[in-house]
Amino acid sequence: MTDDLIEENLPEIPPGYERMNWFQGFGRQIGPLYEKYDGAGDYTRAFLVGEHHTNGMRNCHGGMLMAFADMAFGHAISIGTHRFWVTVRLVTDFLASAKVGDWVEGTGEIVGAEADLYTVRGRIWVKDQTIMTGSGVFKALGERPVRQSWPKHLRKT
Amino acid sequence: MTDDLIEENLPEIPPGYERMNWFQGFGRQIGPLYEKYDGAGDYTRAFLVGEHHTNGMRNCHGGMLMAFADMAFGHAISIGTHRFWVTVRLVTDFLASAKVGDWVEGTGEIVGAEADLYTVRGRIWVKDQTIMTGSGVFKALGERPVRQSWPKHLRKT
Repeated sequence: MTDDLIEENLPEIPPGYERMNWFQGFGRQIGPLYEKYDGAGDYTRAFLVGEHHTNGMRNCHGGMLMAFADMAFGHAISIGTHRFWVTVRLVTDFLASAKVGDWVEGTGEIVGAEADLYTVRGRIWVKDQTIMTGSGVFKALGERPVRQSWPKHLRKT
Repeated sequence: MTDDLIEENLPEIPPGYERMNWFQGFGRQIGPLYEKYDGAGDYTRAFLVGEHHTNGMRNCHGGMLMAFADMAFGHAISIGTHRFWVTVRLVTDFLASAKVGDWVEGTGEIVGAEADLYTVRGRIWVKDQTIMTGSGVFKALGERPVRQSWPKHLRKT
């Protein structure tokens, strides 16, 4: 057995996605996660359902989808306000399941703002099937440093 | 360096809690989780916040609390109906944060039932502080085998 085996087992990541640079904490624990930016300032985050994401029925665990929703929806605050944030309330509706090997994608958009409280509506899907919808209320905190992985037009000027 | 170091670093688990027997999937990935039953049929689940649960502010990640809520609230269905279940909707309100080293506990109770849909109200706390409240709608599936870890009075007769 050689290391080549590992190379051959690498997942195929759709074009445009970059692996997120999380080397500690919960983001690393449930990862790897990926993100992609388009020219218009929209983003998607994604992960490939692995064995370590499954429930007893070998589908993606609901808890993983919720944790991913928090990261996928909340990122709208990072992008839109350039501030750190905490989650105040999250509502998640489970519409369908995801299986091992599925490429799960999600995004969110800010639909309301009141002082430091932002409401985000989000969606998570596998291919053309929506598997979760939800909305979150997030409280924006202090300013956050720009991440070099963000496209130039999303960085603070 | 010897293995003794590892022993000395073992967390102190409050009396009555047993480590859950999850050796695969998402439950293992975000664990270890613990559970406790009292004589009246109530239960609590718990985990010790470790580095692998943290967000960028070194608190327990909101995604972890939501995943734990799913497991802590949904268990009311396992205990109450002896059936497998999937999550249909979960609402989580974040009231306070948990730090590394905090012992986080949670439980849920069935407050409504309509055909196969059960509504559970739940709470998560650290010591005497509630850190999350929420409610979930879960759909009960087929009958589940009794777990030997359940107290005798909770097993199907």
